[in-house]
Amino acid sequence: MARKRIIVDMDEVLADVIPKFTALYERYFGRKLHPEDYAGKKIYDLPGAAHIRNHLHDPGFFLDLPVMPHAREVMRWLARHYDVYVATATMEFPNSLPDKYVWLRREFPFISWRRLVFCGSKEVLVGDYMIDDHVSNVERFGGKALLYTASHNLYEKRFTRVDDWLEVRAFFEKELEREAAAP
Amino acid sequence: MARKRIIVDMDEVLADVIPKFTALYERYFGRKLHPEDYAGKKIYDLPGAAHIRNHLHDPGFFLDLPVMPHAREVMRWLARHYDVYVATATMEFPNSLPDKYVWLRREFPFISWRRLVFCGSKEVLVGDYMIDDHVSNVERFGGKALLYTASHNLYEKRFTRVDDWLEVRAFFEKELEREAAAP
Repeated sequence: MARKRIIVDMDEVLADVIPKFTALYERYFGRKLHPEDYAGKKIYDLPGAAHIRNHLHDPGFFLDLPVMPHAREVMRWLARHYDVYVATATMEFPNSLPDKYVWLRREFPFISWRRLVFCGSKEVLVGDYMIDDHVSNVERFGGKALLYTASHNLYEKRFTRVDDWLEVRAFFEKELEREAAAP
Repeated sequence: MARKRIIVDMDEVLADVIPKFTALYERYFGRKLHPEDYAGKKIYDLPGAAHIRNHLHDPGFFLDLPVMPHAREVMRWLARHYDVYVATATMEFPNSLPDKYVWLRREFPFISWRRLVFCGSKEVLVGDYMIDDHVSNVERFGGKALLYTASHNLYEKRFTRVDDWLEVRAFFEKELEREAAAP
């Protein structure tokens, strides 16, 4: 059987951008943010904080992001069973292009450069599965999409949700079992 | 009717890389190249010239490439009738990432950053049409592919071929007429 394709998002799925945004918010406003302060939104959607989004233009912003817990081990496992692509929106913030390349090759060296996609819109991508935190990507995808939990999508009810990478692994373990059992 | 999607390649389709490669060859080997010298191949496939391909790593290599004749006017016309994406292989040569972004935004400013895709393999892309000079991209594409003539594909017979951008325009004029005539 042909290997199936999974398209995985980078920001807030493989890479944790929240610590940078909370640190920026604290520097601008002098107060600590807690997850309940930005439940249902992005940090730069908080009142008066829209300008924080401009830091996505900073060279280096994406160069030292922490890897999400268990992301590397589960991605390595997925790559044994599937063709795993990483697709990340870079084009609105072109300074992110070299940073994201370096980050992905360093943190996920087992994902070939052939499997990286830097894009604007993801509607041009085709695959069997997508793992993404953005409703706009998930709802236009032609395959089975998993909504990776992030502050801004907490109240979204329409999609299969994964809260962390251990849930991603559990989902695909079931998929593989189901396929192995199929006639 | 939903607009159809065309996926257009950059190198040797929108951008002419041949003058740079012939100039490099001349600098290394002290003799001028003519198109018949590299018919059926890439310039770096000539005997002893493989190292010339490494210049694709040079920062700036992709920054000042000439635009193919009529490419801009035909792309502007296409963009009125279709969703036009530009998809270009960047990941083997990561220094090309910022250069290709700058080149595309400067030379084709009417193509939104939302419609740019920098990738490794193009098999993850889906659309109605592709215009590309590489047989490996054209043969794996799920829609209708046009092989854009380049030295290395001259003897390929399997695909619909376009020799220049005026032929691209003529092809899509017929497609639009055909669709307008359809019941």
